Amino acid sequence: MPKTTTKTTTKMTTKTTTTIPADLDRWLTANDKSGMSDLFEFLRIPSVSARSEHDADTARAAAWLKAALTKIGFTTKVWQTRGHPVVVGEWRKAPPGAPTVLIYGHYDVQPPEPLDLWTSPPFEPAIRDGKLFARGSVDDKGQLWVHVMALAAHLGARGTLPVNVIVLAEGEEEVGSQNLAPFIEQHARKLACDYVVISDSTMFAPGIPSILSSLRGLAYFEIKVKGPSGDLHSGMYGGAVVNPAMALARILATLHDRNGRVALRGFYDRVRPFPAAVLKGMRKLPHSDVRFKKEVGVRALGGEAGKTTLEKLWTRPTCEVNGMLSGYTGEGAKTVLPSVAMAKVSFRLVPDQDPEVIERLLRSHLDTVVPPGVTATLHPMHGGRPWRADLDGPLYTAARVALKAAFGRDPVIVGEGGSIPVVGDFERILKAPVLLVGFGLPGENAHAPDEWISVQNVRLGTRAMAMLYDCLRDPA
Amino acid sequence: MPKTTTKTTTKMTTKTTTTIPADLDRWLTANDKSGMSDLFEFLRIPSVSARSEHDADTARAAAWLKAALTKIGFTTKVWQTRGHPVVVGEWRKAPPGAPTVLIYGHYDVQPPEPLDLWTSPPFEPAIRDGKLFARGSVDDKGQLWVHVMALAAHLGARGTLPVNVIVLAEGEEEVGSQNLAPFIEQHARKLACDYVVISDSTMFAPGIPSILSSLRGLAYFEIKVKGPSGDLHSGMYGGAVVNPAMALARILATLHDRNGRVALRGFYDRVRPFPAAVLKGMRKLPHSDVRFKKEVGVRALGGEAGKTTLEKLWTRPTCEVNGMLSGYTGEGAKTVLPSVAMAKVSFRLVPDQDPEVIERLLRSHLDTVVPPGVTATLHPMHGGRPWRADLDGPLYTAARVALKAAFGRDPVIVGEGGSIPVVGDFERILKAPVLLVGFGLPGENAHAPDEWISVQNVRLGTRAMAMLYDCLRDPA
Repeated sequence: MPKTTTKTTTKMTTKTTTTIPADLDRWLTANDKSGMSDLFEFLRIPSVSARSEHDADTARAAAWLKAALTKIGFTTKVWQTRGHPVVVGEWRKAPPGAPTVLIYGHYDVQPPEPLDLWTSPPFEPAIRDGKLFARGSVDDKGQLWVHVMALAAHLGARGTLPVNVIVLAEGEEEVGSQNLAPFIEQHARKLACDYVVISDSTMFAPGIPSILSSLRGLAYFEIKVKGPSGDLHSGMYGGAVVNPAMALARILATLHDRNGRVALRGFYDRVRPFPAAVLKGMRKLPHSDVRFKKEVGVRALGGEAGKTTLEKLWTRPTCEVNGMLSGYTGEGAKTVLPSVAMAKVSFRLVPDQDPEVIERLLRSHLDTVVPPGVTATLHPMHGGRPWRADLDGPLYTAARVALKAAFGRDPVIVGEGGSIPVVGDFERILKAPVLLVGFGLPGENAHAPDEWISVQNVRLGTRAMAMLYDCLRDPA
Repeated sequence: MPKTTTKTTTKMTTKTTTTIPADLDRWLTANDKSGMSDLFEFLRIPSVSARSEHDADTARAAAWLKAALTKIGFTTKVWQTRGHPVVVGEWRKAPPGAPTVLIYGHYDVQPPEPLDLWTSPPFEPAIRDGKLFARGSVDDKGQLWVHVMALAAHLGARGTLPVNVIVLAEGEEEVGSQNLAPFIEQHARKLACDYVVISDSTMFAPGIPSILSSLRGLAYFEIKVKGPSGDLHSGMYGGAVVNPAMALARILATLHDRNGRVALRGFYDRVRPFPAAVLKGMRKLPHSDVRFKKEVGVRALGGEAGKTTLEKLWTRPTCEVNGMLSGYTGEGAKTVLPSVAMAKVSFRLVPDQDPEVIERLLRSHLDTVVPPGVTATLHPMHGGRPWRADLDGPLYTAARVALKAAFGRDPVIVGEGGSIPVVGDFERILKAPVLLVGFGLPGENAHAPDEWISVQNVRLGTRAMAMLYDCLRDPA
């Protein structure tokens, strides 16, 4: 990174000293107990989307959410899909010219197994040490409930909202959201909005409100190297026949250069640099490589030379081998010269890289590195575009103000190395910016036993999201 | 290879015009039918050493062979081992000063399955188109029987043999010969001999008698590369954590240089060049790369630059990947950054390379190529020394004369890319040179359904082996 001072295009901190509006804060305090009680009810419904034996429960969770939204004054509908239903709630009585905010969440949960590793049963919510334990507490019922309570505060304390609001909750997030993009496409006019807000992520650390500013995309392939028509005896044929496993290893070894950069020609051509201020902010985050190495269980880290760990994970594209198989892999020794060798290879992408372009670059690369005597075929398996937020827009300014007011400090800007395809879908179809602001915490066990959400984060998150609407009506 | 004429240390052809002694030839012709009938009897015994339900059959085959040797005038004994028995027959009435020849073979056979792929049942010998079909016909009962008939010819036609003879037949060749080396060690004085003769291999092509002059050795390893303590999400961790599968691929890619040579430092230091005459002879063999590629099913061959295919297979050491496993290898895509990656890697060795030295070289190599962030462990699994015949000795001169007399043309010198550890054991323990002369043919299905041996090869092989004793009494 250049050490010279560059023009900071992104306002990272705000001097605004706004506090949570007193009426909303009072209403939320007064209704804290009943709100928590309602959330417990929601969490008790085992809406496991992956299990057909829970289909009735999943439908029940949709109906429950519909009722909760109706109760606070929303017009609601449960839409059937080819899978689990989509719940849509609308409130459109804001003053003329007010923006429309779409809140997305999901009411389905991961399977709870293995059950014996839960301290208290997954569908019997329990609070211990300030943590609310239940399947779905943080992923995502609890975070969706933060928004419902924020809306309830406005409508309860003031009888109105400063913006129009659409709540869209799906029941298939944990099984791939296959019917969501088609639903958004089909109802694009009805779902038209100015902003999308999603709370389904975590904060960088306790007490540090976090805005997720980027997601990596994905281009996943299977490479199959084929040599002789059948497995051969490595003694009788070894030395004259090209070994597909060895050829594959040599091919994979060409995918990075000596500095850990991906070696496909043109791979970085479309990489748009992250704003200097964002990178500077990431470097200030309380990250420890020593702790990270300990967590992962390694003595040294790798990757691109000259980048920090968080930069590598959040802002840089990668190439990884996800799987590899050839020849004899059982116990002992078998002297086989294998006929085929397979590798699963995936690339994480950053804006403005494109999975289809990456496929083309990989094909060209293979053409130059596959040795005579074997053939390589490439099977594209899975793709997703990377995403990056426009941190300068009014949505992010509003989020910064609201989060600071609720948590008492400026939010940090974080990235995410994984991919959430639905974010790109919202932006692409609805042409509205997406805000990813989550209230989970590291170690929350989102897909594991003893999933939890911080009760304090639920309270502060609700206040922040309630204040967000005021900020969006009148952006700083 | 140098094009200049080098001193030919090996006499490749012989001007001797000796023919098969008439008395032996006559006796063999007269006893052809009964000899074949006896061989059928031997082949009918399903002595499958790998199957305990055939243990009684295996013992019966040993007893049958003992009886056959006794019948022609040998002193015989069946020795029990920890596995299947060893049959030893001795005839020691040669004139004082005559050499002693040890003939090794095996009376056990491979399992016959899959039975439905046999044209005639595996243990009901049948002759079709000059081929004798049966399990064990070529591997190795038929080839062992060639020797018994050759001995019978001498004792039948002349009542004596020009040399002392020991026949040693084991019943565990198809299951690893685990008890053979200990047996030879234990009975080294009893088995002391001047020459060892083994017929358990194939001729280069029909009508071309062949002497096997070399075997490659083996050094087999498992390399395990370990990275993070558990599998990681390739999105959340990819780019900062060293990927063990990628690291393994890069390690494997360092094992060869760009000319296809093994890149371990010092790997070729102990490679003793093959005699120029042997290499010259191999280049004259009727080998076709086009046919070889078709047989193997590839469009191009590989391996060491500047060597012919037969040179690569028979005279050069190799490094092959025999197996490779890491991460997710099932259907579809899983975005895992694997915790471990494994490869089975083996080296074929040529004289005077040593498996233990190769292990040391590989360890040193790994020390220099394993990147920080992963560790590699090396597990040696299997080793065997390479072997090369001294083609200049009286044993080989005798074999050339005898084979030419029987087959009407000079034998060719061939190599074998695989390993037969017992050959080295005989040389090491008994300090006697070993002659490998086989009468199988390409396509003989040694370990497959429809195993066969050429009836003509049995007849000519028997004559050649009968004449061998005359030649050894009085080497050219």
